[in-house]
Amino acid sequence: MNKEDIRVILEKVKKGELEVDAAASSLKDLPFKDLGFAKVDNHRSLRNGFPEVIYCEGKSLAEIEGIVKEMLKHENNILASRAEKEVYQRIKEIAPEAVYHERPKMIFIEKQKLKKTKSKILVVSGGTSDIPVAEEAVVTAEALGNSVERLYDVGVAGIHRLLGNLDKLNDAEVIITVAGMEGALASVVGGLVDKPVIAVPTSVGYGANFGGVSALLTMLNSCASGIGVVNIDNGFGAAYLASTINLQIEKARKEG
Amino acid sequence: MNKEDIRVILEKVKKGELEVDAAASSLKDLPFKDLGFAKVDNHRSLRNGFPEVIYCEGKSLAEIEGIVKEMLKHENNILASRAEKEVYQRIKEIAPEAVYHERPKMIFIEKQKLKKTKSKILVVSGGTSDIPVAEEAVVTAEALGNSVERLYDVGVAGIHRLLGNLDKLNDAEVIITVAGMEGALASVVGGLVDKPVIAVPTSVGYGANFGGVSALLTMLNSCASGIGVVNIDNGFGAAYLASTINLQIEKARKEG
Amino acid sequence: MNKEDIRVILEKVKKGELEVDAAASSLKDLPFKDLGFAKVDNHRSLRNGFPEVIYCEGKSLAEIEGIVKEMLKHENNILASRAEKEVYQRIKEIAPEAVYHERPKMIFIEKQKLKKTKSKILVVSGGTSDIPVAEEAVVTAEALGNSVERLYDVGVAGIHRLLGNLDKLNDAEVIITVAGMEGALASVVGGLVDKPVIAVPTSVGYGANFGGVSALLTMLNSCASGIGVVNIDNGFGAAYLASTINLQIEKARKEG
Amino acid sequence: MNKEDIRVILEKVKKGELEVDAAASSLKDLPFKDLGFAKVDNHRSLRNGFPEVIYCEGKSLAEIEGIVKEMLKHENNILASRAEKEVYQRIKEIAPEAVYHERPKMIFIEKQKLKKTKSKILVVSGGTSDIPVAEEAVVTAEALGNSVERLYDVGVAGIHRLLGNLDKLNDAEVIITVAGMEGALASVVGGLVDKPVIAVPTSVGYGANFGGVSALLTMLNSCASGIGVVNIDNGFGAAYLASTINLQIEKARKEG
Amino acid sequence: MNKEDIRVILEKVKKGELEVDAAASSLKDLPFKDLGFAKVDNHRSLRNGFPEVIYCEGKSLAEIEGIVKEMLKHENNILASRAEKEVYQRIKEIAPEAVYHERPKMIFIEKQKLKKTKSKILVVSGGTSDIPVAEEAVVTAEALGNSVERLYDVGVAGIHRLLGNLDKLNDAEVIITVAGMEGALASVVGGLVDKPVIAVPTSVGYGANFGGVSALLTMLNSCASGIGVVNIDNGFGAAYLASTINLQIEKARKEG
Amino acid sequence: MNKEDIRVILEKVKKGELEVDAAASSLKDLPFKDLGFAKVDNHRSLRNGFPEVIYCEGKSLAEIEGIVKEMLKHENNILASRAEKEVYQRIKEIAPEAVYHERPKMIFIEKQKLKKTKSKILVVSGGTSDIPVAEEAVVTAEALGNSVERLYDVGVAGIHRLLGNLDKLNDAEVIITVAGMEGALASVVGGLVDKPVIAVPTSVGYGANFGGVSALLTMLNSCASGIGVVNIDNGFGAAYLASTINLQIEKARKEG
Amino acid sequence: MNKEDIRVILEKVKKGELEVDAAASSLKDLPFKDLGFAKVDNHRSLRNGFPEVIYCEGKSLAEIEGIVKEMLKHENNILASRAEKEVYQRIKEIAPEAVYHERPKMIFIEKQKLKKTKSKILVVSGGTSDIPVAEEAVVTAEALGNSVERLYDVGVAGIHRLLGNLDKLNDAEVIITVAGMEGALASVVGGLVDKPVIAVPTSVGYGANFGGVSALLTMLNSCASGIGVVNIDNGFGAAYLASTINLQIEKARKEG
Amino acid sequence: MNKEDIRVILEKVKKGELEVDAAASSLKDLPFKDLGFAKVDNHRSLRNGFPEVIYCEGKSLAEIEGIVKEMLKHENNILASRAEKEVYQRIKEIAPEAVYHERPKMIFIEKQKLKKTKSKILVVSGGTSDIPVAEEAVVTAEALGNSVERLYDVGVAGIHRLLGNLDKLNDAEVIITVAGMEGALASVVGGLVDKPVIAVPTSVGYGANFGGVSALLTMLNSCASGIGVVNIDNGFGAAYLASTINLQIEKARKEG
Repeated sequence: MNKEDIRVILEKVKKGELEVDAAASSLKDLPFKDLGFAKVDNHRSLRNGFPEVIYCEGKSLAEIEGIVKEMLKHENNILASRAEKEVYQRIKEIAPEAVYHERPKMIFIEKQKLKKTKSKILVVSGGTSDIPVAEEAVVTAEALGNSVERLYDVGVAGIHRLLGNLDKLNDAEVIITVAGMEGALASVVGGLVDKPVIAVPTSVGYGANFGGVSALLTMLNSCASGIGVVNIDNGFGAAYLASTINLQIEKARKEG
Repeated sequence: MNKEDIRVILEKVKKGELEVDAAASSLKDLPFKDLGFAKVDNHRSLRNGFPEVIYCEGKSLAEIEGIVKEMLKHENNILASRAEKEVYQRIKEIAPEAVYHERPKMIFIEKQKLKKTKSKILVVSGGTSDIPVAEEAVVTAEALGNSVERLYDVGVAGIHRLLGNLDKLNDAEVIITVAGMEGALASVVGGLVDKPVIAVPTSVGYGANFGGVSALLTMLNSCASGIGVVNIDNGFGAAYLASTINLQIEKARKEG
Repeated sequence: MNKEDIRVILEKVKKGELEVDAAASSLKDLPFKDLGFAKVDNHRSLRNGFPEVIYCEGKSLAEIEGIVKEMLKHENNILASRAEKEVYQRIKEIAPEAVYHERPKMIFIEKQKLKKTKSKILVVSGGTSDIPVAEEAVVTAEALGNSVERLYDVGVAGIHRLLGNLDKLNDAEVIITVAGMEGALASVVGGLVDKPVIAVPTSVGYGANFGGVSALLTMLNSCASGIGVVNIDNGFGAAYLASTINLQIEKARKEG
Repeated sequence: MNKEDIRVILEKVKKGELEVDAAASSLKDLPFKDLGFAKVDNHRSLRNGFPEVIYCEGKSLAEIEGIVKEMLKHENNILASRAEKEVYQRIKEIAPEAVYHERPKMIFIEKQKLKKTKSKILVVSGGTSDIPVAEEAVVTAEALGNSVERLYDVGVAGIHRLLGNLDKLNDAEVIITVAGMEGALASVVGGLVDKPVIAVPTSVGYGANFGGVSALLTMLNSCASGIGVVNIDNGFGAAYLASTINLQIEKARKEG
Repeated sequence: MNKEDIRVILEKVKKGELEVDAAASSLKDLPFKDLGFAKVDNHRSLRNGFPEVIYCEGKSLAEIEGIVKEMLKHENNILASRAEKEVYQRIKEIAPEAVYHERPKMIFIEKQKLKKTKSKILVVSGGTSDIPVAEEAVVTAEALGNSVERLYDVGVAGIHRLLGNLDKLNDAEVIITVAGMEGALASVVGGLVDKPVIAVPTSVGYGANFGGVSALLTMLNSCASGIGVVNIDNGFGAAYLASTINLQIEKARKEG
Repeated sequence: MNKEDIRVILEKVKKGELEVDAAASSLKDLPFKDLGFAKVDNHRSLRNGFPEVIYCEGKSLAEIEGIVKEMLKHENNILASRAEKEVYQRIKEIAPEAVYHERPKMIFIEKQKLKKTKSKILVVSGGTSDIPVAEEAVVTAEALGNSVERLYDVGVAGIHRLLGNLDKLNDAEVIITVAGMEGALASVVGGLVDKPVIAVPTSVGYGANFGGVSALLTMLNSCASGIGVVNIDNGFGAAYLASTINLQIEKARKEG
Repeated sequence: MNKEDIRVILEKVKKGELEVDAAASSLKDLPFKDLGFAKVDNHRSLRNGFPEVIYCEGKSLAEIEGIVKEMLKHENNILASRAEKEVYQRIKEIAPEAVYHERPKMIFIEKQKLKKTKSKILVVSGGTSDIPVAEEAVVTAEALGNSVERLYDVGVAGIHRLLGNLDKLNDAEVIITVAGMEGALASVVGGLVDKPVIAVPTSVGYGANFGGVSALLTMLNSCASGIGVVNIDNGFGAAYLASTINLQIEKARKEG
Repeated sequence: MNKEDIRVILEKVKKGELEVDAAASSLKDLPFKDLGFAKVDNHRSLRNGFPEVIYCEGKSLAEIEGIVKEMLKHENNILASRAEKEVYQRIKEIAPEAVYHERPKMIFIEKQKLKKTKSKILVVSGGTSDIPVAEEAVVTAEALGNSVERLYDVGVAGIHRLLGNLDKLNDAEVIITVAGMEGALASVVGGLVDKPVIAVPTSVGYGANFGGVSALLTMLNSCASGIGVVNIDNGFGAAYLASTINLQIEKARKEG
């Protein structure tokens, strides 16, 4: 396609419809621009309604409002993360269809209805305090067009709750495990299934937990193979990775 | 299937072919055993020849030899990681078909020819010193039945080399990036594609590199979304995760 | 006992009182459920009134109230840790018998009077600032049914105070040492007695104390053998461990 | 007893059998000496044959030989830890009854046959590489007079192996869990039982394992209550602590 | 020049115009004083209007006001960093010409118009959240008399934006790169140009970012040669260093 | 003296004036009590008016008031550290002679006029922000009876200010250096003098300063020999150590 | 120039001398290739003989020999860093003109005589043990065409040696300071001059030096403005940065 | 004295015996030179025979031999630290009077007999493994002219050994405590005496000891006031500091 664009320009030059100088100018930066657009196009082809994303932490209300206003000019859905309630209240004024997810502090503006995938992402979490991060993963994965299931409160200190839900583990194509404290959940899940497991350490805990470092190290050192780890509390990133996996699966299913 | 086994026993009890006591005994631990076998079966159904794996570091020659001898009794392929040359020489005596991969220090014994996947895993690496870890990923991924491509020596300090190989990035279903020093390669690759990226920090570097911690943190904090990180120098784990992803894709392709 | 349940089902199947399908279903997850109940039963048999526990930090007033209301439906005692005064005020409305322990910020609702153990847990602490954590251990251990003694303000910078209280050390079956700053108390106590010593580092201190890490490392590296360490400020965990020890002792005393 | 000694001296002074000056001198440091002897006596009363212990790491062959020779003058058993094979060869020359435990690198000289306890310590370990540390715990606990059971190779990545051995967990009075990598074993065991659990992190692993720090943090942050942690690779310390617990239980059993 | 001062004194002594004692006294500490003045003079010779600088963080309003009042007695420009808005409001009362730069929280009082350099400093930044630090660099560099260009929002996750602005990189004599998260921008820029690159890690990020440590390590370990790193968020220091470089270039240009 | 007490008791026993039992009881814990009193007596003999000390951080107003009221019953001076202004206001009501030192947040109640030492402690500090810690050292050292001199604002970035004050360094018997940021002041001072230098790192700084760790490490690694380091911001401890040194010197001067 | 290349192709297309397809192919990746060559050309224009560089650590003798052989085909000089003596011996066989610098372990093959710059880089170092790193900087800077001066053994513990050499500091355009232990040298030098200072922490030291981290933090937190820090022991990187600065100065001197 | 030198020069200038130019030259750097000599002179005045010191670690045999040869030209004693036996063998050839201290790996060449101080330094150590560092302190302190006493093997796990030696603590003017593992010895000693205590953490230990960091933190956070800490294993530095204190005391004793 990029080559096609170049050829169009060259044909015009050949036919004398375009000056050499003008052609040279437009050719010079083309590949760099293509780098950026390629990715966007790639999204488009597969998923209409793919959202634009704003990370709200550290931005003022005015800044966020400005960005959202700009985004609203396009037809895309909009997903805002780490958004306090007051952000939602401001956004709602300019986008009444905005929905607020309170626990993960996310706002979703669904301008185009997404078609959900057939394959599923399962979000598994340890303790009740890990739920906000787990929900950030759920809301993100859904906004990216995935079918999502939840399996909460199955920490390893009460292993029977996890083992009593093996069906859910077996039913999903991709699994996200969210756990704080010592974060051992990822290892146990990774030992039970043979599919992609993404691990999100949370900052839940105190003392020698060091704001989630303990769970992070646990996950990086897991004795179960095949676990990919994201940053502490990064439910968004885990869902994004799970989604790239799931959409590859979906694509393969459709294209054979 | 598990339920099926239980039903068989129950039918026998019903018909009086099996004593209640004997049935109770065999039922008591069944689910626990199933936990272990389920995973193995899952493997089998999809991939004949799925290898058994030995991590050699910290094991004596005699221990390794014993384990391999035991494994050779089954029909599975065998993959040994972190194996010094002398390990290979010992193994070769009992398994002449063993092949030694010198840079990643791996031994592969292929007793059953694996059918390669249609979808591809691409292993991208930064500097020449990262190649042993990259090769650990390549050999592992291939031993697990995946088609694998290499793209080496494309570190971000010479970004044109990476950009000159966009086709390779576009052609793969899953990408593994291997990088030491500051490990920025994962972020740049993650920014160029919209598919699963697995990042392996290597311990290449010195001083404030802290044996790979610098690259590890870089990857965990990547500004590109959708990157799953594994432990430092863990080429094996990255390939294992990439393989679970790729096999899910392959399965979807076949099953529709 | 678990085996007994299975046998009951099998007998019914044998007698035709239960369908094979129904039996299979109820057998399938039994062992996992048993895993959870075994522990609870184990508690019951020994200690009536064993409390249910809530960790309040990071939970909203509404969430805590909901959980306590649910718990109040059973006959168990209830112990809430890390509970600010306002939590107590809310709880008191629904459970007027609730008692607030101000320094350790704990609430105890004693619905069944506990019989105290004959053997004793001694809680030893260094400075005045360590007392809240020490009291968390005291209140927890008492709520778990143990006889508890206190020995406070015996930091190693004034070693004569500790040495002047050797009787108390000799009288207890299990000792919990609570200390911040450099945490040397555990080593000195561990050198004076030959019984289980549990060490709780506290976050008391500043600068190179790193929020309790200094005391934690001191305790892990103690030159006195036989010291078990828990997380920083984790008075609850220390008491829980001390209690499992003490109840084993008590059980042995009774059962011979 | 101490008071008794003082009274004897006082009686002699009273009767004029002892000069005031001489009495004063011998009284002056008595309590300090008692501090040391009390502990030894305490051991004696319960356990004849309680071993003297040498930590060999960092000591020369000559130094170790000298210490053992000195120890051999008493009737006590002798336990040497972190002893390379050449240490054993030297010791064997002066104490032919010395036994070498190769994996934990320990030497035991049993001059008095120990009577084993009725209650049991169970040593549980994760991977094969953790066995040397687990064996250090086993040999130590046995040398201290305890009955010990082993449950090895039950890492959480294959949870069915642990769950298939619940009887062993139920049978023991005290449990030591030994695990490297991410160290999640302690949490899972702690969730399955309601008895004292002592956790030993091992330095097994690489990269972000940081020589055992990952497993150490996991154990300190365990979501299961009642776990006491010792230093990395400190099988000896874990066994010593388990032994103080077990001997308290044994004492209670005997004394009622 | 220093030597000149000494000679003047010596000549006076020689001519008998100055007592030996008085001369000795004034000579005694002269070199130490010169140490301080040399630097100031060095500034003067090149740059009239070189600013005096106040770091406001941790100083009270009254203290800052006092310092500025003192400074206003001289003819120099004044630059205040890390100044909250209320500081500005107070300063404005005594120096109405003070200008407040809101994002970098800096106040500049330009009493002497600075002549800008011919050579340029380019400030490049990754994400929007890095802009306050980038602006601290811009305002500082300008206050020190440099021509400054901006190139913002060119993070490596969208590498095409940076590559589309190669002209700006080529046009500058010194480049400052400001980046948080994983801080890979410095490496990519360092790989594209062959001129001095100064890297400022920012504290933007969360979790395993550790307040900017991740970006700091990335920059110190850059695989691109020739990058000088300053402290986290230290836009001022980066600009100061860039300015010493740029002024050396300017001086060489003028002096040939 | 201790021996004297014992002899008195023994004489009474000998003469029959004291029962053996009563004597035994009072002898039993004597040495431990002596441990505590020895230190106090040691103080007394040398320094009348030696203050009692309260560390206020983390204590409530009521607690502090209680402790001070208790202390006021004795004739000693009282020194309260880390005391907010409201603490002073409360204390002033019960001890009108209390003096508040605002910058180091200390309260001093001088009930007995101290005689100052002849030898001097010099407190040297780097930047203005280090002054509160430096003043904590000054006020403490004075309250302990020492003559104290100040040399402030002589950071190594303007080395001429320090070098212009060599007399002060030469005049003191003990030197305390207080510095934040990189803390290089201690090394430079240690290189200029050959007397005891005590180094106090302060938490002044940001980013890779890590709350004073940078300065702490600098001081521990000083290439100048003979520097003793105290905890971050611990002006009190530095002064206490300097005082023990200075009082030893003073004692030697008097006793010859 | 790049645009010129494009224009040449376009003219050929216009004239029909080149097929559209062939032109499109060669245009497609041109800009990426240009990214790489631009930097090289930039070098060339200013400095003939600019060296190619090999980092030998972690490469086998055979690998290094292969790389050097390849490099020898071009006319460039060659600089090999971190090269053990045996590397030199091998290289000498294929490049007899190779010179070995023993202390910094560098090999230089000067095939084209470099013209030295007029402006100077001064390399200042603290202790004797820092000299290998300082020499790495010297040899590198010279190989890059710079005039270099040395000022060694002027650590801050003997500040008079540094102050006795102010002329050397005044004479240089760029200063590299190399220091281990506490690394305070950079701050003192930075306080004495007003020119670019590049700081290299070395791993010289022990204990709380943490392999150079202490010196690294000191330099990052320097209270003197305008210091750029490179990785621990990275003499090469410091020289490379100093060289980019010095060459900019040189260029300005020539071009005016 | 310095001023005297200046006056001599000025008088000559006044009398015309010295040219102004020559005088100016010799005056210019005088004060800097004085900085260096002042310290040396200060030593001399008090202690003839004060040793020159070499730190051998990281220096080649040839380098050490060269330095010692140079030193032997002066009359001073020579002290070499961290010297392996082979260093001693080489030194002995050129200085047969050299004495080797094996445990602390120090060489002392006593060319002038030192007069020992009347006041004493006591070196206290915890375990046997700490003795090499303790002996480094002893040998250093003696070489610097101090009377030194030893009190070894009095670790806090057997507190009675320390308490049984209170006389030794009372007899010394300055105390050095050397301890590894958890390093609690410093706190206990600091609590027993009211004199300068210098604490040396050692790297003795394993696991979470982190090469001495645990003991270092313990000492910095000691709850006993008045403890100055030096770097890990830095027996030399502790002795040097103790010596500056002791010599100040000695000087005061003599001068009154």
